[in-house]
Amino acid sequence: MRQLSTIADLRVFTSGAPRPLGLVPTMGALHAGHMALVAAAREECASVVATIFVNPAQFGPAEDLARYPRPLSEDLSMLEAAGVSAAFVPPVEEMFPAGSATTVHVGAPARPLEGEARPGHFDGVATVVAKLLLQVGPERAYFGQKDAQQLAVVRRLVADLDIPVSIVAVPTVREADGLAVSTRNAYLSPEQRAAAPAVYRALAAARDRFRIGAGVPAGAGTQVRAQLEAGCRERLAREPLIDAIDYVAVVDPETMAPWAGPGAAMLAVAVRMGGVRLIDNVLLE
Amino acid sequence: MRQLSTIADLRVFTSGAPRPLGLVPTMGALHAGHMALVAAAREECASVVATIFVNPAQFGPAEDLARYPRPLSEDLSMLEAAGVSAAFVPPVEEMFPAGSATTVHVGAPARPLEGEARPGHFDGVATVVAKLLLQVGPERAYFGQKDAQQLAVVRRLVADLDIPVSIVAVPTVREADGLAVSTRNAYLSPEQRAAAPAVYRALAAARDRFRIGAGVPAGAGTQVRAQLEAGCRERLAREPLIDAIDYVAVVDPETMAPWAGPGAAMLAVAVRMGGVRLIDNVLLE
Repeated sequence: MRQLSTIADLRVFTSGAPRPLGLVPTMGALHAGHMALVAAAREECASVVATIFVNPAQFGPAEDLARYPRPLSEDLSMLEAAGVSAAFVPPVEEMFPAGSATTVHVGAPARPLEGEARPGHFDGVATVVAKLLLQVGPERAYFGQKDAQQLAVVRRLVADLDIPVSIVAVPTVREADGLAVSTRNAYLSPEQRAAAPAVYRALAAARDRFRIGAGVPAGAGTQVRAQLEAGCRERLAREPLIDAIDYVAVVDPETMAPWAGPGAAMLAVAVRMGGVRLIDNVLLE
Repeated sequence: MRQLSTIADLRVFTSGAPRPLGLVPTMGALHAGHMALVAAAREECASVVATIFVNPAQFGPAEDLARYPRPLSEDLSMLEAAGVSAAFVPPVEEMFPAGSATTVHVGAPARPLEGEARPGHFDGVATVVAKLLLQVGPERAYFGQKDAQQLAVVRRLVADLDIPVSIVAVPTVREADGLAVSTRNAYLSPEQRAAAPAVYRALAAARDRFRIGAGVPAGAGTQVRAQLEAGCRERLAREPLIDAIDYVAVVDPETMAPWAGPGAAMLAVAVRMGGVRLIDNVLLE
């Protein structure tokens, strides 16, 4: 596996790399969720570039940028063992040199949910993802369904800026008890960790209810949405270690607008346990 | 010459086009300034794609979008006669389909001068130029020095988004009396047209003064700037058909920040004659 830290070296590498080329963008601190992205890329692509970049532009001023874990040598070993062709690990000055002044802003799908909870977050995501896509020039790029709104924002920007790449969504990887694998799970106390699967159980219960009621009558979408959201919220509220519910929302997974049926629907939640914010979602189908 | 109106057809064309490929983005209503871009592209590139798109996103609500001239068949004849390989003339829905939500925003170099006079203008320019560059995928793209701040904004966004293209600046084409060639010159009355070369004369006089004083003493940049601006403003004020001076500014042509010397300097002006706004600039060297 090649390890690259400059865009110039990256371009030399990609210009000679067998195609199709797959991109797996990460912030490091790799876990089974990231490795599922790598596995999907390996399966479909002749070369895979994984990037490790803790993007300061997507952290709010009160967020965990400074304490975000950076276990670089373990990350590189995992990528190498998984058959990645090259790891691109640029320093911040390589991604955002002095004088950088350009932001990619995605409107509608970035506005609700995480966009409301984390002002500026998706501008940071969209800007760095656009840069990575244009630096690497892959045929395919892999993103986790776990960060469903990020996925919608990335799909939107790729369509809007006419970036010639296919965006591939990889299903959320879960622990045996249902908790979505996430870097931030490591911040949970043992008690919080034991209680955290309540999030997925609430989502799964709503999905099961949706399936049982399959065939939403025309015009009843808004009512079904309200029932699903209320039921899920109630279940989450029953878990005493969940300190706050940021949102519970049934949305169109492409536009992130409130779902009014028919068509694809997704139930997304964000909760806080102490200082840790957990997000998760399920597709309703 | 091929005439293309969809991105899909454009991609088929560019995938088979001899390289290097040059892009000349225009809003149509072609004149000698545009044809100088085409000529430069023809000289340096094996294929040339010219685009004609009157970009609504870069017009303000009170600006001349509706009356902007659209002489399409003359434009196409001119491009064909000049040896352009393909003209890409997308309808607005092809460039901004329903659901489009992404804006490219350039900060510092887009903020003063035209950015102040025309809020949102450079977001519209940056977004459409990023799209065109990514749709066409040229090795080189040609822009006029006349729109110097646009050039600086485009250079900035290409560097910041890591778009693999060289931006080529083509010197301003002038009428025999010095007036910079511009689509909007057609809006001038005969009297205004006769008076308009006062703009270039004021710029040229300042440039000559700068040359005579060549070798600005260290630390004197700010003072030299103030003198040049005052002298130019005074000359412009002497022309009674100039109704307003929007700005007269000596700036760094890369950052558009007020020039403080040493290093490259540009004198840029915007004036109004009746309802017509004229911009022009000269490099001080």
